[in-house]
Amino acid sequence: MFENTARTELSSLGEFGLIDHITKHIELTQTSTIKGVGDDAAILQFDAEQIVVSTDMLLEGIHFDLSYVPLKHLGYKSIVVNLSDIYSMNAIPTQVLVSIGVSNRFSLEAIEEIYQGMNIACKRYGVDLVGGDTSASKQGLVISVTAIGKQEAIKITKREGAGINDLLCVSGDLGAAYMGLQLLEREKNVYLNNPEIQPDLEGYDYIVERQLKPEARKDIIEILKEKEIIPTSMIDVSDGLASEILHLCKSSNLGCSVYEEKIPIDPMTYDAARMFNLDPTVCALSGGEDYELLFTVKQSDFDKLKNNPDISIIGHMTQQSEGPQLVSKSGNQHKITAQGWNAFNL
Amino acid sequence: MFENTARTELSSLGEFGLIDHITKHIELTQTSTIKGVGDDAAILQFDAEQIVVSTDMLLEGIHFDLSYVPLKHLGYKSIVVNLSDIYSMNAIPTQVLVSIGVSNRFSLEAIEEIYQGMNIACKRYGVDLVGGDTSASKQGLVISVTAIGKQEAIKITKREGAGINDLLCVSGDLGAAYMGLQLLEREKNVYLNNPEIQPDLEGYDYIVERQLKPEARKDIIEILKEKEIIPTSMIDVSDGLASEILHLCKSSNLGCSVYEEKIPIDPMTYDAARMFNLDPTVCALSGGEDYELLFTVKQSDFDKLKNNPDISIIGHMTQQSEGPQLVSKSGNQHKITAQGWNAFNL
Repeated sequence: MFENTARTELSSLGEFGLIDHITKHIELTQTSTIKGVGDDAAILQFDAEQIVVSTDMLLEGIHFDLSYVPLKHLGYKSIVVNLSDIYSMNAIPTQVLVSIGVSNRFSLEAIEEIYQGMNIACKRYGVDLVGGDTSASKQGLVISVTAIGKQEAIKITKREGAGINDLLCVSGDLGAAYMGLQLLEREKNVYLNNPEIQPDLEGYDYIVERQLKPEARKDIIEILKEKEIIPTSMIDVSDGLASEILHLCKSSNLGCSVYEEKIPIDPMTYDAARMFNLDPTVCALSGGEDYELLFTVKQSDFDKLKNNPDISIIGHMTQQSEGPQLVSKSGNQHKITAQGWNAFNL
Repeated sequence: MFENTARTELSSLGEFGLIDHITKHIELTQTSTIKGVGDDAAILQFDAEQIVVSTDMLLEGIHFDLSYVPLKHLGYKSIVVNLSDIYSMNAIPTQVLVSIGVSNRFSLEAIEEIYQGMNIACKRYGVDLVGGDTSASKQGLVISVTAIGKQEAIKITKREGAGINDLLCVSGDLGAAYMGLQLLEREKNVYLNNPEIQPDLEGYDYIVERQLKPEARKDIIEILKEKEIIPTSMIDVSDGLASEILHLCKSSNLGCSVYEEKIPIDPMTYDAARMFNLDPTVCALSGGEDYELLFTVKQSDFDKLKNNPDISIIGHMTQQSEGPQLVSKSGNQHKITAQGWNAFNL
């Protein structure tokens, strides 16, 4: 690829040279950013609003595989997954800090691609990159992002706070990022067995993009604001719908009834699941990395949401004693359990 | 060691089990912490004060060597080095977020030791651990810490702001952490050549502790407050005195004269440097990891600081055209250059 024709060794710049290089194109847009990179700490000012802060670490070989993840997409995704945590508090992300550890197998051009992706995400979501740390690593690429956001105290939504009979809603569709991953993994194996065969991802753009370049649901937060809805609880879908439902139920001391037929699944996700002999509902429940928003609203907000194509009402909250239940298409009840991927079973 | 007799595999807990385990002993003490761990983001409130935020990543094999760094010390140090960045803004640290990546060669007990060290540091410095991320890693241990602090806007000190003739001051003494590292590296090599020989660190407690368990200079920030001194610029000494002096000069568009004879070096650092045939002044200038505070004050503050045994006045700021100069004990001038360790020359 063209981007790889030049190769500047990181050792030729040194740490400060690399930092200068990375930070020279940073633009600040938030009024809450008093000072960004260039000192021991960034300086922020928020006045009466509360601040929400979240942090996430992405490790090569665990969270991403550079054999099919382009570096620019990786940079973009590493910002987006953190912003998703801020949106899930019903807050507006304002700043991010980025730490990165790179081994000397990465060139300056490679690092630039990562930061290009990060800068594109920052611009798209209107957040300022205000700080970070750059370090050598012995092996592999490590990215750690901290995101900061703001909101009036009364509008912040936690995992707790859902009430009985509140409607359980989810944005977008689920399971696509997981199916995209299956497809990428398959093509990787085909390639490893025979490097002359090129990856065949045609017709699967949407699910591949959901895996490689997910978006955070800024638009849903804007819709909620416009419709004057404050969710009673909210979480983003990173580990899979089932796992997030259990979090909301546990934090709010409630049970729930979720209707399988209401779970939003894209036709392409269906097709891909069938191709891999997987149950599409299981993919939606346990797949993860959807970065959709799962939230509860009062029944009185039903009319405001019922015709929104980006929001599905998938069930309602019940007494804690009833537990979290999935009502299948045939009408049977199944207890929802987290079958989420356990990262420690390596 | 006793701590290693029990071994609980991380895979037996899973990610959420590990998070529950780590977070159950967390105590919150800051009034600015509205909600700590347990949601997608922590919630903070600061009112009229400005916020400073800093982040640092520690990677195994680059920043620490587990063959001689106890895990508890590592946890302690990973918090302290971040708080040092907050103090260097003349701010009070209030919260930290911790992300950690561990391979399956670490047991639950090992992770507990790291967090024990972190909790001890949080308690000692009065900060709340409010969030983080826990992940598997393919190889090695990764720790990323984000620290948050607060201060009135008018009292925050940056690297810029020093004026001509301002006094250049440094807390404590320099070069000790670097000599401690040399000693630990030497004993490691002795041990690797003959595992029957035990490490001989006797008589070198201070410099070894400076390396393994550094402290951030909270006390200096308190002294400055008590004496009603707002430094005109400040930075913490993490990469070595020379490198930090260059940062202050560059950010403030000034030169400086630093007097070699005024650079504070502990007698044990002197002895160790001589033992290794190193120049103690070079160790102080280029060693790094001292986590002392380097700052400038107006000449009118001289009387308030002159008798403080914890603060050395090592020089003064000059016109930018004069550059950063070291005046040797024999009276010769040398241009100060950063010989700091370049992490990318691996």
